Amino acid sequence: MSHIALPARLEETAAAVERLLDRLLSPEPLPGEIARPARVVEAMRYAMLGGGKRLRPHLVVEAARLFGREDEGVLRAGAAIECVHGYSLIHDDLPAMDDDELRRGKPTVHRAFDEATAILAGDGLLTLAFDMLADAPTDPDPALRLALVLALSRASGLGGMVGGQMLDLEAEGRFTPDGKPLPADEEGTLRLQAMKTGAILAAAVEMGAIAGRAADRDRQALAAYGRALGKAFQIADDLLDHEGDAALVGKATGKDAARGKATLVTLLGIEPARARLRALVAEAQAALAPFGGRAEVLRATASFVAERQN
Amino acid sequence: MSHIALPARLEETAAAVERLLDRLLSPEPLPGEIARPARVVEAMRYAMLGGGKRLRPHLVVEAARLFGREDEGVLRAGAAIECVHGYSLIHDDLPAMDDDELRRGKPTVHRAFDEATAILAGDGLLTLAFDMLADAPTDPDPALRLALVLALSRASGLGGMVGGQMLDLEAEGRFTPDGKPLPADEEGTLRLQAMKTGAILAAAVEMGAIAGRAADRDRQALAAYGRALGKAFQIADDLLDHEGDAALVGKATGKDAARGKATLVTLLGIEPARARLRALVAEAQAALAPFGGRAEVLRATASFVAERQN
Repeated sequence: MSHIALPARLEETAAAVERLLDRLLSPEPLPGEIARPARVVEAMRYAMLGGGKRLRPHLVVEAARLFGREDEGVLRAGAAIECVHGYSLIHDDLPAMDDDELRRGKPTVHRAFDEATAILAGDGLLTLAFDMLADAPTDPDPALRLALVLALSRASGLGGMVGGQMLDLEAEGRFTPDGKPLPADEEGTLRLQAMKTGAILAAAVEMGAIAGRAADRDRQALAAYGRALGKAFQIADDLLDHEGDAALVGKATGKDAARGKATLVTLLGIEPARARLRALVAEAQAALAPFGGRAEVLRATASFVAERQN
Repeated sequence: MSHIALPARLEETAAAVERLLDRLLSPEPLPGEIARPARVVEAMRYAMLGGGKRLRPHLVVEAARLFGREDEGVLRAGAAIECVHGYSLIHDDLPAMDDDELRRGKPTVHRAFDEATAILAGDGLLTLAFDMLADAPTDPDPALRLALVLALSRASGLGGMVGGQMLDLEAEGRFTPDGKPLPADEEGTLRLQAMKTGAILAAAVEMGAIAGRAADRDRQALAAYGRALGKAFQIADDLLDHEGDAALVGKATGKDAARGKATLVTLLGIEPARARLRALVAEAQAALAPFGGRAEVLRATASFVAERQN
């Protein structure tokens, strides 16, 4: 299998996730639900359907595939993590948070609908994510489904993504009397990023390993891959914000600098950040050594994450 | 066991839930979490600690007790549903939603902290609720923990509480060009209330039945109790909003009328609403017949819900 396989794999998973989300975000209530009001369903569909790279589902699917598992259950796990990703974008874009008007080149949910609907759509997506993981079609083994729930909750709650967004707002000086960004160092910035974006990317890889019933040693290798990939993703994101083309990126760029927010790019400089990025890609790829040629797609994914233009 | 037992049982459970939440909302991260930023932990603790009737945990605990189960696991299930209740109050109070300044007699979370922190505290509580249910200390049986997760997710997501809040905002005329409340009928109002508040109360009873491994017939009896109790709770709430004392209620009263919002009180009139409330309490209590004297506390709870002053 060559690097050429990656775009096809990404597209294949993205298409399958799109179909699954289309079904899960149906107006038809599940057993135990009373009814699904049209407006909140529409807002959730607006946020979740119609594209996106589906990087997190891709990581779940490809990690599970290492262990020979490829089925609808893995896709459900991937779609669940995508729902958490989607909810976090909706809430982060709110006026009270980052106040963004564009996301993937279209109006953010609170602009297309309204703030209340956006808050509720996010809440609904977060709830749905845990529902999907807990429900029987994800895996016949209850213990495995629970392990997926816990991997996702730990990565996305107050000790992960939610906490990371809190630190991010604090770093911007949101709660200081003068509103000036707090002085930042590399260690604090790395922790903030690990929580805000790294944890959920690492969780995607971990959930693939869980779904594939990976042995401990393999899980640890994949965890090392996930951690390095998460860090690489964030540096690539910082570089894109610093020098990317807003039209390609699909959202405003230069925002970090405008907010005086520290990133590894501002702390280290562009060239050292690029060197760090290359080292992290190499680290991620080296972690996959135990899997040999089977991990070619995940290896290519690390390069893809570093080189993406949006 | 006489009616006198109810206040003691409520207090006992409330105290145990308070202690458990105090521990769960610790600044110490769980395994798999990176760190728990102080500000979001403080906001979550502010919202969750220091009182409240803990009616939902009480229902979980008392339903499980019918089947002889009384342990920390049941309390965890109760605390999880209380976290979902707490998150829904934080988000509903936001300026973009109901814009409330007081809750239980103290400033709402977004007033005491700020809007962004309130959104994140709510997100963190919702995530924590599913984490708690999924984690091993809740029950040794993975299938039972999953059943708890699904009962809670179905009741609280877009087909339950989240959807109910959406319908509520729509009913207030939030999305009509003239902003006038939509014409309301009894059926629509009942469905809205069933989703917004009834589903989660019924889920509390259901989760107790799940935790107690109730047989199907007993579960159905408890489900009938939970549904009637949820309806009774809402009428009592409407009556309180209509004629309650804001100082006792701990939040603004008369809000529904000010918003021109339909309730069963405005649709039926005060006396017919009171009669409906009495009938629902009787219905809830009749559903408990199969449990005989063992269900005395749940019977008293139905009366308590109808007669409460806050």
